[in-house]
Amino acid sequence: MTYERDNIRRMSAYQWGEQPDTDEVLKLNTNENPYPPSPEIGRALTSFNVNALRRYPQPTADRLRQLLAELHELREENIVITNGGDEALRLALTTFVEPGSAFGMAEPSYSLYSVLADIQGATTVALPLGEAWDIPRSFAAQLNEAGANLACIVNPHAPSGTLTDVDTISQLANDFNGVLLVDEAYVDFVDPALRYDLTRLVNAFDNLLILRTFSKGYSLAGLRLGYLLGSPGLINPILNKTRDSYNIDGISQCLGEAAVLDRAYAEDTWHKVRTSRRTLRDQLIEFGFRVAISQSNFLLAEVPLDFVMSAEEIYQTLKQSGILIRFFNNPLMEDKLRITVGTESQNRHLLACLEELLQP
Amino acid sequence: MTYERDNIRRMSAYQWGEQPDTDEVLKLNTNENPYPPSPEIGRALTSFNVNALRRYPQPTADRLRQLLAELHELREENIVITNGGDEALRLALTTFVEPGSAFGMAEPSYSLYSVLADIQGATTVALPLGEAWDIPRSFAAQLNEAGANLACIVNPHAPSGTLTDVDTISQLANDFNGVLLVDEAYVDFVDPALRYDLTRLVNAFDNLLILRTFSKGYSLAGLRLGYLLGSPGLINPILNKTRDSYNIDGISQCLGEAAVLDRAYAEDTWHKVRTSRRTLRDQLIEFGFRVAISQSNFLLAEVPLDFVMSAEEIYQTLKQSGILIRFFNNPLMEDKLRITVGTESQNRHLLACLEELLQP
Repeated sequence: MTYERDNIRRMSAYQWGEQPDTDEVLKLNTNENPYPPSPEIGRALTSFNVNALRRYPQPTADRLRQLLAELHELREENIVITNGGDEALRLALTTFVEPGSAFGMAEPSYSLYSVLADIQGATTVALPLGEAWDIPRSFAAQLNEAGANLACIVNPHAPSGTLTDVDTISQLANDFNGVLLVDEAYVDFVDPALRYDLTRLVNAFDNLLILRTFSKGYSLAGLRLGYLLGSPGLINPILNKTRDSYNIDGISQCLGEAAVLDRAYAEDTWHKVRTSRRTLRDQLIEFGFRVAISQSNFLLAEVPLDFVMSAEEIYQTLKQSGILIRFFNNPLMEDKLRITVGTESQNRHLLACLEELLQP
Repeated sequence: MTYERDNIRRMSAYQWGEQPDTDEVLKLNTNENPYPPSPEIGRALTSFNVNALRRYPQPTADRLRQLLAELHELREENIVITNGGDEALRLALTTFVEPGSAFGMAEPSYSLYSVLADIQGATTVALPLGEAWDIPRSFAAQLNEAGANLACIVNPHAPSGTLTDVDTISQLANDFNGVLLVDEAYVDFVDPALRYDLTRLVNAFDNLLILRTFSKGYSLAGLRLGYLLGSPGLINPILNKTRDSYNIDGISQCLGEAAVLDRAYAEDTWHKVRTSRRTLRDQLIEFGFRVAISQSNFLLAEVPLDFVMSAEEIYQTLKQSGILIRFFNNPLMEDKLRITVGTESQNRHLLACLEELLQP
């Protein structure tokens, strides 16, 4: 006898990236920041009053919301803190997507989106991206036609790293009848010269949600801290109704505050990643891969048909050498490899292994 | 224009207990353990490798699951760790309750249950408890009749503190066609002489889920750590499908392990709470309240009709004196006050204030 709902029984689980419990593997598979978190995080941790854990945490993480409101020049009512970006996505589905209705996304993108739709009992409408990973012009129209009340796009795009500009997203938010969630998990790695900033649209569109996370930019994937920015009409039902009352523990609130206060440290890591990203891409192209320009902390390397090894073979061989990169075993991605940008020395090690591997 | 689902718009939000951000208030309103967590928690925190936060946490908190499996003489496949007990409840609803179907509970009990049912779009069937807070004999039959696939009961009962025995619950699990979730948030405070132990039923019933939390017993409400025990058929879809992949952060996993390893410390606090509970109850009865025997870390004091003050007046007056207790503003509870058992000196302070207040 099984008791779970039919949609849960039928659905496929989300496949998380390999997380080996050892430092001996070079992990370039799940897009962590290669640099450790700010030293202020360590200081905040050791000075944390452990006895305070006896009590429930502040339910809405208000101090952190205040700091983020200042940072983004928004108000607290525009912000809800979540247990990682994944919880933000789940809460958006829970709050805005009726079971049985349509949920919109682009394909390929973060595979969790459709898994969350399956859990919610919604039907995923996945619209294919263009040749250059660009969002199709008919995106909003097609989703309106399907009656979708929520759509997720990731910008910079994963797994390609390409960036959609503010005007295009603004047009999407304007044309789409439902809530447009823009997952900016990797936004910290965008070249500042591009002046990409979506937060200024929050007050212009009552149907726009922006997802941010501390996982990549602040080197805090282990802490599970993310947030949503949006109009009070979108934030309020999440903050006060669908969110678990005490979703953010006391330590995470405290360390999140320390991270925002020492944002300068994080910015320095973003700069280093951007510099390494350029060098790594040049080298991969030299090896014969096709690599899209990335505004993220990873590169998507396409393996040409006439290459000495397939994408899967390269992934497997590197894994045997103690280097993990990401291979997605599905038709759309089977000739591609997603490689997280590491430190300079990590990248050099990867390139040396690749060079040896690819020698004729 | 609003975008949230109709059920979300219509529902009332869960009202969390007041959480003043100061130590100057005597907080006897949300059932925290009055003693600080084990000193081992502090040690684990200061020796935590902060740089590990750069990476994602172990997705399923396996070391903690191992420790809990040993503790409960079960297997890892019987356990899923959750972001507090609240997440465990939500996941049970998500996994087992079809939107539009019935969800069962007893009334009164933890008010979050029906809020979670509202979010899931389920219909709450709330069956009234008997005079002595006992579960009605027809509980399972009525829920079967309503077609409920999940029912939650809390044992020891909140807000009364009364304990339902293992045989009664065993019978319920046997008679109920759906999943029976027994919320044991307060079980650590049960008198060991009663030999109450539901965990031995996990292997006997494939439809039984037991909820545990670190919040009260281990003095770690601020950490957000709970878990479910159950048959693999119930645990597996939660562990691998409906749970957020990285729901437990790295620090919480580490501190949870430290708490289990120093369970002896926690047991000592339980013993102290039990001793104080007896004294506090005797005193409250002496003041004229009716107080059920509690196996929990709180007492439910009923204010007789002919009392000098109403329950609400007592709550308000104590609040002005810097003492918070819990008053539930609903017809079933309006003559009652829930009082968390504090330390000996906290209880004496409460009793002194009450004595002054109640003087004719």
